[in-house]
Amino acid sequence: MPIAIAPDQPDHGIFSGSAVVDVNNTSGFFDISVPAQERIVAMYTLNTPTSQTQEIAYSLDGGTSFLKYRGNPVIDVNSTQFRDPKVFFHSQTNQWIVATVLAQQYQVVFYASPDLKNWTELSRFGPAGYLGFQYEVPDLVQIPIEGTNESKWVLFLSINPGAPQGGSFVQYFIGEFDGKHFKPDDYSIGIQDFGKDFYASQTWSNLPPEQGVVGLAWANNWDYTNSVPVSGAWRTIQTLARTLTLRRTYTNPEVQRLVVASALISLHHVSPTNVYADIPLSGHAAIDLNITTTSATSDIMNATTLITIESSDSGFYEAIIIGVRNSMVWIDRENAPRNWRMPFFSTKLSTFVQTLPVNSDSAPVKLRAVIDRSVLELFINDGVQSAVVLFYMSCGRKPDNINVRVSEGMSAVVSATSLRGIWQCGNCSNSAQFMINERDEL
Amino acid sequence: MPIAIAPDQPDHGIFSGSAVVDVNNTSGFFDISVPAQERIVAMYTLNTPTSQTQEIAYSLDGGTSFLKYRGNPVIDVNSTQFRDPKVFFHSQTNQWIVATVLAQQYQVVFYASPDLKNWTELSRFGPAGYLGFQYEVPDLVQIPIEGTNESKWVLFLSINPGAPQGGSFVQYFIGEFDGKHFKPDDYSIGIQDFGKDFYASQTWSNLPPEQGVVGLAWANNWDYTNSVPVSGAWRTIQTLARTLTLRRTYTNPEVQRLVVASALISLHHVSPTNVYADIPLSGHAAIDLNITTTSATSDIMNATTLITIESSDSGFYEAIIIGVRNSMVWIDRENAPRNWRMPFFSTKLSTFVQTLPVNSDSAPVKLRAVIDRSVLELFINDGVQSAVVLFYMSCGRKPDNINVRVSEGMSAVVSATSLRGIWQCGNCSNSAQFMINERDEL
Repeated sequence: MPIAIAPDQPDHGIFSGSAVVDVNNTSGFFDISVPAQERIVAMYTLNTPTSQTQEIAYSLDGGTSFLKYRGNPVIDVNSTQFRDPKVFFHSQTNQWIVATVLAQQYQVVFYASPDLKNWTELSRFGPAGYLGFQYEVPDLVQIPIEGTNESKWVLFLSINPGAPQGGSFVQYFIGEFDGKHFKPDDYSIGIQDFGKDFYASQTWSNLPPEQGVVGLAWANNWDYTNSVPVSGAWRTIQTLARTLTLRRTYTNPEVQRLVVASALISLHHVSPTNVYADIPLSGHAAIDLNITTTSATSDIMNATTLITIESSDSGFYEAIIIGVRNSMVWIDRENAPRNWRMPFFSTKLSTFVQTLPVNSDSAPVKLRAVIDRSVLELFINDGVQSAVVLFYMSCGRKPDNINVRVSEGMSAVVSATSLRGIWQCGNCSNSAQFMINERDEL
Repeated sequence: MPIAIAPDQPDHGIFSGSAVVDVNNTSGFFDISVPAQERIVAMYTLNTPTSQTQEIAYSLDGGTSFLKYRGNPVIDVNSTQFRDPKVFFHSQTNQWIVATVLAQQYQVVFYASPDLKNWTELSRFGPAGYLGFQYEVPDLVQIPIEGTNESKWVLFLSINPGAPQGGSFVQYFIGEFDGKHFKPDDYSIGIQDFGKDFYASQTWSNLPPEQGVVGLAWANNWDYTNSVPVSGAWRTIQTLARTLTLRRTYTNPEVQRLVVASALISLHHVSPTNVYADIPLSGHAAIDLNITTTSATSDIMNATTLITIESSDSGFYEAIIIGVRNSMVWIDRENAPRNWRMPFFSTKLSTFVQTLPVNSDSAPVKLRAVIDRSVLELFINDGVQSAVVLFYMSCGRKPDNINVRVSEGMSAVVSATSLRGIWQCGNCSNSAQFMINERDEL
């Protein structure tokens, strides 16, 4: 398909944005020939050598092609660092709201509009949280609190460069939005992902309530995305979509706080769940791995579960390792790749595990990991923490085995499921069955 | 010397605290036999299995021994997670102020006292910033703004575990303190050090104004301090003392913000400054290295300066590397140690360089590095950013050479100075002279 919204001049760029379905034709772009559910209006940043402005474009064919609005730009504040409009319909005040950033002023700027064309500034938020070099890609979304009928507004905000882990990352604030101001409950911040390859997270706004809040992110880091040791289609990807909720959880023995939890939306499994210690991967498009690890020993400093995702056909050791010990989870990608001298490709990532019960030492830790060629997406304790981590085997190899080991005093229940590939090719056959080492517990 | 303040019972502990000189004998602990400048009162946390309370003790011999106050505890809020009193005299309101934390409530609690014995709660701050598992070791201090007669109050706050880089770290807020409330200018946070071995930073309060604000930190990380591959006196240390200032600096081309800058207090150099490409280290107690690196090429992605601190006598490559490219600085300790399988010992640390001029690509980057056996303390652009990073050569070896290389299009001016050792032993001779490869520029 051709590019849907292309720049008109060689030195112009269509930068990040978002799109809404203008069901009620508030914009006036549509007539009855366009079904209500196909009335797509996109809002994006036009980048030129001298400015960044917000523009809109609309589609009369359900999103295949777009027409730019003749009245563009719809927001212009005479800035070269003003971008990333995230637009949604705010039903409580019956208006469109857009969140943008004055990136290098460290400000999120909110605007309202009745028709997507005429915008009025509502308020600003910031500087707050980690600043780094600049703000990017704001997302303001109402997220339900698990187990209640309540919800909170969450402002996600991406930073690049200058994230604490290096390069780019996503932080968030939890609070209230009254249609004009975002007011955080306090000025604490959360980090959406403790890996290093999760940036510019965005949600679909105005989904039907029964679908919850669904979002995804860009699975890479500006620190090294331009030189990752691969080529072609695998160079950079989006994460899997995940459903976001707010969960009230113990972050230490004294306090329960709301944190953003993420659960994968349903994946297309092709084989029933099985339980293994060694899981051969060859022939599978991707693997959905579930592990519950329990320490039954007082020697908590040494009781360890290691999950090794490895490639054995290269003649030397290539692996990415997930470890669990005490209340810590870590990921080590030092050997995948083995010899890529990229100083920003941090190889050791770790977190302490949230949802700590008062006696945390012997609490089980639940892991879910989806391993797809060169990306690991890890979810801890039903997604109360997550990490997206890229890894690269040599010569484009895929991992061909997952091995799970536990030390004395630990036990782990392991299940793995093959995922249906979207590629129609021999390499991605999904017909193989798991074969070896079936057992209930290691 | 014996322990100055020891617990009275085996299951009690004297935890972190601070001390002041009670020149005016507000406490009534002293008579004229104790010179005004020796009237030391220490405030610390008594940790018991059932509580943490704040206690005081005083010294009649200038700090060699301490007597515990009979009226202890002086602050008790019926908590097991209440600690780390940092006490100072607030001359504007003529009272003692102490900052403590209700660690797992994510609150800094401020108290005031006329006499160090009777304390009244003033206010609380938090939750704010990054929370992690808990707050520890608050420090509220007034810091001058460079080039002005103004100052701001800075609240430093340590987190462990759960820092974004993993384990423990120090964040700070900049604002005002009126003797009752700390009010941040905004709710942005700074990170005091981008390395992984800088925790529980503390300043000396009430220094004479001409000495500025001087502080130091613990050069380690709770994630691995109990298992570092060394023994004896080198197991864990404090950083060098540094003078803290607030510097108004460009964090991006649009905005100047205040950041905490740190400069080493004067060190005892023993040889004149020299300029080298290869600097042999053997025979020197420690090295104070100054490098200014400049890119004179448009190929900024590949123009790199590498400073390698290496040990060659082990028969294999052991080194810690500092790199500069474009507006990035990184530290790689992957080969020092080579084979320590510690998943939390992150080996690749990096930052983008602050104090960016509008045209940042060709701006010089100034580095100062002190290398002392197993610790690197790095200061970028006169301390606007800093990193403390531990490293370990095999078998207790010290690095024996520093090598500086630049790629085409870069230049570096290098000088190195030997530091006087405090150890009186043959291994730490400071009489050797630099020998080779002297030149003005590489």
